[in-house]
Amino acid sequence: MKAAFIHEPGPAESIVIGDLPDPRPGERDIVVEVKASSVNPIDIYIRSGMIPMDLPLPFIPGCDFAGIVRAVGPGVQSFAPGDKVWGSNQGLLGRQGTMARLACVHEHFAYPIPEGVSFEQAAAASLVGITASIGLHQKACLSSGEKVLVSGGGGAIGSMVIQMAAAEKAKVTATTSSAEKMDRCRNDGATTILDYTKDEWADQALEKNPGGFDVIWETSRTPDLSTLVGLLAENGRMVIMAGRDARPEFPIGPFYVKGCSLFGFAMFKIPPHRQAEAASKVNEGLASGAIRPGIAATFPLDKASEAHTLQESITLHRSSSGGIASGKILVIP
Amino acid sequence: MKAAFIHEPGPAESIVIGDLPDPRPGERDIVVEVKASSVNPIDIYIRSGMIPMDLPLPFIPGCDFAGIVRAVGPGVQSFAPGDKVWGSNQGLLGRQGTMARLACVHEHFAYPIPEGVSFEQAAAASLVGITASIGLHQKACLSSGEKVLVSGGGGAIGSMVIQMAAAEKAKVTATTSSAEKMDRCRNDGATTILDYTKDEWADQALEKNPGGFDVIWETSRTPDLSTLVGLLAENGRMVIMAGRDARPEFPIGPFYVKGCSLFGFAMFKIPPHRQAEAASKVNEGLASGAIRPGIAATFPLDKASEAHTLQESITLHRSSSGGIASGKILVIP
Repeated sequence: MKAAFIHEPGPAESIVIGDLPDPRPGERDIVVEVKASSVNPIDIYIRSGMIPMDLPLPFIPGCDFAGIVRAVGPGVQSFAPGDKVWGSNQGLLGRQGTMARLACVHEHFAYPIPEGVSFEQAAAASLVGITASIGLHQKACLSSGEKVLVSGGGGAIGSMVIQMAAAEKAKVTATTSSAEKMDRCRNDGATTILDYTKDEWADQALEKNPGGFDVIWETSRTPDLSTLVGLLAENGRMVIMAGRDARPEFPIGPFYVKGCSLFGFAMFKIPPHRQAEAASKVNEGLASGAIRPGIAATFPLDKASEAHTLQESITLHRSSSGGIASGKILVIP
Repeated sequence: MKAAFIHEPGPAESIVIGDLPDPRPGERDIVVEVKASSVNPIDIYIRSGMIPMDLPLPFIPGCDFAGIVRAVGPGVQSFAPGDKVWGSNQGLLGRQGTMARLACVHEHFAYPIPEGVSFEQAAAASLVGITASIGLHQKACLSSGEKVLVSGGGGAIGSMVIQMAAAEKAKVTATTSSAEKMDRCRNDGATTILDYTKDEWADQALEKNPGGFDVIWETSRTPDLSTLVGLLAENGRMVIMAGRDARPEFPIGPFYVKGCSLFGFAMFKIPPHRQAEAASKVNEGLASGAIRPGIAATFPLDKASEAHTLQESITLHRSSSGGIASGKILVIP
């Protein structure tokens, strides 16, 4: 099969296109003909070696996929050839990735694509959708009508968190910077959008949300926990999932006096059954139209290294030229 | 009725003993003849004005009580005169306290004293027991067999947390300083006891608990979150409930990569039905003997100000002379 792969961790240019043996399904695996794969920051970290992982070599990067089941292992119970499926969590922890014509996936990491949803939409919603649901539903236990702040609402995760919170009838405030991203946040369902480059954003957020926020989702890699904890309401919950090297000050008093909780997680470590619960929530949103993942750019498999270069410029350098950071980058095998 | 009270917030010496009108129960109140009242740090903060609260004046300090129901309001459903009850959450948020012959308590803050448990034991277990259960059971969701670290296991809260965790068959490590407190931690059920004044305690804790702790309870008012997060296991949960002015560094990366959670709470803000759930857990432990609150000193009502002075020396100055910090201070009206 045709695939994009690396012989060892390295820059985006080390991705080569070539032929690899077709994968054969194990007991509970399905083989998916990949119609769309999307790129995530974790793909960059793994491909470059920034996050060292034991990789099967040659290694195919890529977490997310959407496609059609072409073969199933003897123990597979949930799928049959011809089913349209999507999923995430490939290309890490020893598993091969999805930037290839075929991907071999354990059935517990695959979910049906709802009627009327395209492969591109499903692939673009995969990792970000599951992540948003785990944070909002499983960690923060978001309730209908609660006040939610998405700090950094203009990125791919932020966009999905806004959409999913809005789908729960939350009152969503988002912070971002450029005018394009502000528009995107508004379209995603945020009713208040603030410019985090302006000092007064936190005061403005409190003015519009007296008593503070029930749920805060921080996407920044340099979280200002003093400000954010100050913005939490009584029983407020905060989610963090970025900022490996950040060591901000943590205001103990306001946090415990208000009975707050802080949740951190790395999506790919969440057990498969919890990911599947999150995937059903994503499917609900995709089916109803409440979740509409933005697609910023689409590359053919031959240009996989360009897709990685673009993702890298967004992830590592926070490039936002042309609003590209507001949507997902797809690779179409 | 005879009571200990203040006319305005001030030092322990401002507590006077005198007669106040007997309380009359409202619709769902019970009037309890107080047989034992215990002193907590929150009593000191409120009496001194360190935590400003609107107080009914003259104000009777005291959260915790154990005694006998002598009268009930017309809407009371759970208790009848003669019942032996205990509880906490009095003497704050506009409510009168318990350092008096009689205390008027909403029935949702009162719990039956199990057969064979003394008033002193019940009063000594009240606030600390409910606090420990809320943190361990409701926040950290402790499971049987998990590894628990109690940082500051020698205090009244720490002692109760150790006992309650040990009752859940957790493997408990405690840190403390003096030899007396180490003995206390061992008696409470800790199997590893480390001296937190020695730099190597954290390394020793990890050596004895490879992979880290599932639950960490921090009692210190100056939490070292870098060290504590480093000691958390995958999916580790940490509870904090002290340190109003502390602003330690928070290591974002290790926290979220391990999928950790941090819970803060102030016990008196927890809703009554959740406190009642915690109280049942305390009652289970009191009834089985798994919970055996230490009693450091007992004062008659006339010496209420001395009881507050002693609590103050423990709370504010961390005095541990004579192992006094390892048990509760009771006032017997």
